[in-house]
Amino acid sequence: MRTIVILLLVLILPLPLFAQDAGKAPVSLQTEECLGCHIIVTPGIVKDWEKSRHSRTVPAEALKKDKLTRRISSESIPEAYAKVAVGCYECHGQNTDRHADSFEHNGYTINVIVSPTDCSTCHAVEARQYSGTKKAMAHGNLVDNPLYMTLANSILGHKSWVDGDLKAAPASSNSLSETCLGCHGTRIEVRGMKTIDTDLLGEIQVPDLAGWPNEGVGRINPDGSFGSCTACHPRHSFSIEIARKPYTCAQCHLEPDVPAWNVYKESKHGNIYLSKKHTWNFENVPWVLGEDFTAPTCAVCHNSLITNPDGEVLAERTHDFGSRLWVRLFSLIYSHPQPRKGDVTVIRNADGLPLPTTFAGEPAMEYLIDEAEQDRRKASMSAVCGGCHSTDWYTSHFDKMDRTIEEVDRMVHTSTRVMQSAWDEGLADAGNPFDEALEKRWALQWLFYANSIKYSSAMTGAPDYATFKNGWWELSRNLEEMKELMELKRSTQYSVPGTK
Amino acid sequence: MRTIVILLLVLILPLPLFAQDAGKAPVSLQTEECLGCHIIVTPGIVKDWEKSRHSRTVPAEALKKDKLTRRISSESIPEAYAKVAVGCYECHGQNTDRHADSFEHNGYTINVIVSPTDCSTCHAVEARQYSGTKKAMAHGNLVDNPLYMTLANSILGHKSWVDGDLKAAPASSNSLSETCLGCHGTRIEVRGMKTIDTDLLGEIQVPDLAGWPNEGVGRINPDGSFGSCTACHPRHSFSIEIARKPYTCAQCHLEPDVPAWNVYKESKHGNIYLSKKHTWNFENVPWVLGEDFTAPTCAVCHNSLITNPDGEVLAERTHDFGSRLWVRLFSLIYSHPQPRKGDVTVIRNADGLPLPTTFAGEPAMEYLIDEAEQDRRKASMSAVCGGCHSTDWYTSHFDKMDRTIEEVDRMVHTSTRVMQSAWDEGLADAGNPFDEALEKRWALQWLFYANSIKYSSAMTGAPDYATFKNGWWELSRNLEEMKELMELKRSTQYSVPGTK
Amino acid sequence: MRTIVILLLVLILPLPLFAQDAGKAPVSLQTEECLGCHIIVTPGIVKDWEKSRHSRTVPAEALKKDKLTRRISSESIPEAYAKVAVGCYECHGQNTDRHADSFEHNGYTINVIVSPTDCSTCHAVEARQYSGTKKAMAHGNLVDNPLYMTLANSILGHKSWVDGDLKAAPASSNSLSETCLGCHGTRIEVRGMKTIDTDLLGEIQVPDLAGWPNEGVGRINPDGSFGSCTACHPRHSFSIEIARKPYTCAQCHLEPDVPAWNVYKESKHGNIYLSKKHTWNFENVPWVLGEDFTAPTCAVCHNSLITNPDGEVLAERTHDFGSRLWVRLFSLIYSHPQPRKGDVTVIRNADGLPLPTTFAGEPAMEYLIDEAEQDRRKASMSAVCGGCHSTDWYTSHFDKMDRTIEEVDRMVHTSTRVMQSAWDEGLADAGNPFDEALEKRWALQWLFYANSIKYSSAMTGAPDYATFKNGWWELSRNLEEMKELMELKRSTQYSVPGTK
Repeated sequence: MRTIVILLLVLILPLPLFAQDAGKAPVSLQTEECLGCHIIVTPGIVKDWEKSRHSRTVPAEALKKDKLTRRISSESIPEAYAKVAVGCYECHGQNTDRHADSFEHNGYTINVIVSPTDCSTCHAVEARQYSGTKKAMAHGNLVDNPLYMTLANSILGHKSWVDGDLKAAPASSNSLSETCLGCHGTRIEVRGMKTIDTDLLGEIQVPDLAGWPNEGVGRINPDGSFGSCTACHPRHSFSIEIARKPYTCAQCHLEPDVPAWNVYKESKHGNIYLSKKHTWNFENVPWVLGEDFTAPTCAVCHNSLITNPDGEVLAERTHDFGSRLWVRLFSLIYSHPQPRKGDVTVIRNADGLPLPTTFAGEPAMEYLIDEAEQDRRKASMSAVCGGCHSTDWYTSHFDKMDRTIEEVDRMVHTSTRVMQSAWDEGLADAGNPFDEALEKRWALQWLFYANSIKYSSAMTGAPDYATFKNGWWELSRNLEEMKELMELKRSTQYSVPGTK
Repeated sequence: MRTIVILLLVLILPLPLFAQDAGKAPVSLQTEECLGCHIIVTPGIVKDWEKSRHSRTVPAEALKKDKLTRRISSESIPEAYAKVAVGCYECHGQNTDRHADSFEHNGYTINVIVSPTDCSTCHAVEARQYSGTKKAMAHGNLVDNPLYMTLANSILGHKSWVDGDLKAAPASSNSLSETCLGCHGTRIEVRGMKTIDTDLLGEIQVPDLAGWPNEGVGRINPDGSFGSCTACHPRHSFSIEIARKPYTCAQCHLEPDVPAWNVYKESKHGNIYLSKKHTWNFENVPWVLGEDFTAPTCAVCHNSLITNPDGEVLAERTHDFGSRLWVRLFSLIYSHPQPRKGDVTVIRNADGLPLPTTFAGEPAMEYLIDEAEQDRRKASMSAVCGGCHSTDWYTSHFDKMDRTIEEVDRMVHTSTRVMQSAWDEGLADAGNPFDEALEKRWALQWLFYANSIKYSSAMTGAPDYATFKNGWWELSRNLEEMKELMELKRSTQYSVPGTK
Repeated sequence: MRTIVILLLVLILPLPLFAQDAGKAPVSLQTEECLGCHIIVTPGIVKDWEKSRHSRTVPAEALKKDKLTRRISSESIPEAYAKVAVGCYECHGQNTDRHADSFEHNGYTINVIVSPTDCSTCHAVEARQYSGTKKAMAHGNLVDNPLYMTLANSILGHKSWVDGDLKAAPASSNSLSETCLGCHGTRIEVRGMKTIDTDLLGEIQVPDLAGWPNEGVGRINPDGSFGSCTACHPRHSFSIEIARKPYTCAQCHLEPDVPAWNVYKESKHGNIYLSKKHTWNFENVPWVLGEDFTAPTCAVCHNSLITNPDGEVLAERTHDFGSRLWVRLFSLIYSHPQPRKGDVTVIRNADGLPLPTTFAGEPAMEYLIDEAEQDRRKASMSAVCGGCHSTDWYTSHFDKMDRTIEEVDRMVHTSTRVMQSAWDEGLADAGNPFDEALEKRWALQWLFYANSIKYSSAMTGAPDYATFKNGWWELSRNLEEMKELMELKRSTQYSVPGTK
């Protein structure tokens, strides 16, 4: 039956349909053959691709645009790819010798996973900018930091109830991939080949991948590259509109630990975005302030190429998403200057811990950017603010933010001192600083509440969020509860077994 | 004054306006008369209806469409309804002899409530599919399960402070209807007739209904039928666009207990929906994958008629919303195969409790679907996934989900063992397993946190939700807090009065 | 270099571009000069303004419209403003003698801040309606109420860890402005002049403002006026669409303390809005029920001018946002009739506290509206409901709401009695009723949970929100935890230092 279906397909499929539509670019013979079957078996992604710019232009044409309007950044495109649409084979058929996930599929050698290295054939600058950033390194930055893994294991590891106590096991690779590594990215490993049963072809052989599916930003790919372009440019439309809309960033940057999206939604900027986005142009390159959009989204401030209406560049395109950031709001356990390098596993604070600050708040400046670099980055962000706001306005805004960071970090410092007292008194066991109820309350202070207040301040306001949602109310309330819990424990002569 | 208004209305109202507009279908004489007054007294719903398909076509025409594009499912339509628009009287004037809520209104006998039985005149298949499902049975499934009502009463019942203790009363019918039954549906009862004062007509007599207003999915109607079509197809546009958009499902399936919408929003599918929905067609029947939409919504996976661009059916339309579901993610108190029947009050676990699993996790298989049925349902869902994803992709996805369900349920099992220890030690009173602070912490484990992680996994990822929002972080933290609370109680020789 | 840029600007700037575009109104000479530089330095706001009605019409023309369609409410417009577009200078150049923030800027005296008094030149009725309302008085209503400031300080003040106890400092002005006053509004004070460095002009002198930037609804402006029109009509488009969309209200009226937006989103009204808003007209004046929109938003019910399709007024426009509200859902600490006046600092309850009810629930009726006024307001709101719903429907709806308010307040009353017991027993110190962990749990009852349930009821349902999110589940759970915490404290002979 399946054989008949395939035969019929080969005989009657109107193949030129894919190649010669008005508005469509010519497709390669290989891609034409991919499409012949995949319009049957996975029509959704074929149609999605047909709506994409990849199907409607060829790189040679894309190269002819001037620098500001060009959407590909490589200086030249290999002959084989220059004059055909960017189709199935052009992406999945690249660099197969480097891909441990390459396999034979109906006469072609293709890769399951398209990596940043593959995309760099046309988008070289973006791939280069991205490589080595905190995002690209996000897998190792988590799993190679023993302190972070202590936290992850305390959250994700199975707990057993044994003799009236909870015994913890390490996190399973499944749970890690479903949680932390969903955003940070998995390490994809090829375990070999496996046989699967398909509707159209019956049994076929495909690579057996561990850590897959995954689209985390720091995924380690079977060709050795880091990252996943589809984290923000979802296949197979690779739509710039999707990448520019905040829902993309919001998949990972959200309440309660990194509430960028939640805060943005409640801000004036977010209000204008939500109210007027239907009148904006999310496809234009360059992205013109005042014409294409009238309030910032994540992409406006952090990475897009932004120009004034007269074509003057306000901000250069960058895929180093931290390159306009000087201070790291994200509390570990206090705010601090951004790390010098994307690989933050090398950082050691004055106490020898793999953290950018000590528990007392001292930053590990050797690993963090200096003041000159901070100023340079602040100026690049300010240039975006200045597209709408007066110098005084945004200067005053950042002054408020600086004061807020300082005030919040002081509250976190008090929380750490309370925690330290509990450890000193034997009311908690400092061995693992994240596993007990009291310690988790301490983590809430910096990981949820301090972060929330700082993000609210940075994004020009989400005052109710900073007050009652996950902000000052919780910061103060939780601190009182920590104190009270300690009093209760103390008055019952409670002590961690073995500490007294 | 009112009389004059009415007289003027009758004399000058441009009645043919309703009947003969371009693009409008002819309306019945009865409906014409309804519209004559209601364009004055409730113009909002008249205008809403005017925008609906009901006002623009007649059933006889709708019947002529071929099977795939047809929007009504009855084989034939009674003569009286076939050639006029589906107007006020066509719906409110049906089956008045069966309706306890029928009444005389300006010379016509009409019903306040239009029931699924009334809608089934044209939409017979949908009404039949829906009847007997968990949704249709949702009222009784809650109020006729004594264990669930123990939980509901412990949440909603008034508490008095008497001699240093909290005394609980049962939930009021008002609070039940404002909370649980808002989604599950009330039982509408006709208490008699009452006089109300209206602007246009002065005092009029209308049925006095208990449990009204309500649009819960399992509402028990005055004609004895179950359900409320307006729960998802809100009156009076009955828009398929609204029913297909996830905001409809999100009215009930949301954080913290059933966070389907919250998880979807954070997933890649949700991101694409939110970013590109303005380019989709939410009105087309059948709903064409890749053309009308490029990422799933709730309706795509669970109930819509979906075809490939070439017209091949990927999924049949169904109003049995569980028919593509094999495993019940919703923890009671562990995941388990879907129930065989919509009426789940009959279920008894091995301990004799009206629950689909025991506290130890053993499923009451006699009442749950067997493996063959599970496989059949999984295949029907997989067919939708396969519209965009390779066989290996969605197989690996479901494998991850299976592992996650197993891991989460193991954590819930540990929580239940901790709770059981508390009951055994007299640190809590097992009489009502839901009313004490410690017991409510146990309920959080399965009702909020386990559910959240499972939904996150099932919908291809909302990794931060599964980690920090209502997921593993809370599951582990709350477990530690349960343990610590028990330790504090134990060391203060606390015991539930009467248990020691 | 800067000088050269400016010279070039002056020479080559195509100034008439701003004045004579098709569809643009003539701009004043002063505004033309503003635009000449600001299209370079802040092009975003210039372009935003160009899209606004302010740039496309002149007040003299706007005045000619009939009463229903007119968008300005002043009876006459001063000659100087009547025949030019409402441009930069027309707003920033007004009443400079009254503005402490006026300054010389490139030859013109302008104000940094445009105040409601300035806007009242054209929008006199709105400014008058707004003045004296709770919103206009929002700054003083918070900071001049010593009890509220005790709460604010307990949340925002820095806590130090001294000898095993937490010592609290008052809130800083920075934290107040980043949280409470972000919505309530700051008091803007002119500290003098300061020098700032700008890209285009180098060093310039500008007023040095304390409390700025801020767009809170009760901001006290440098001309002595109260309020900030840009809180809802964000500059510089002043779009009525933005003001009418619920995202504007949602900047402040949201979870967890005032969850209006959260509840609306989950309601049927919110579902219809989210699903169909792309087909609505958010610009039309008057706003026509059934034609421009088919479900209410915040603005529909609370302040917009709403007419029937035949032009009959259902609701008059008002900028007194409480004028259709009779009961104050917001718990302080119980619901009560709305205050008579916007300045609520004058209220004293029977115990002498600045609260609209006593802790026992007795309302301070002397300061609250009487029944006749309550009925009048309920009727004005009901007229909006009646645009779509039958008299019986909305009457039954409000009956449910009344019962829910009563039930919830009874639960809050129990919580207050529990709290009172703790104070009486010395388990907490009543001196500051908001600073201890147990007291913060009591505040959660009325400030978060009671509010949430009442808002859910008022907005026709968000049943899951009222049940599990921040509703009955939390109300009951937290009450149990309060009791249990007291038991633990009691059994450990805990007492607040100095109370026993």
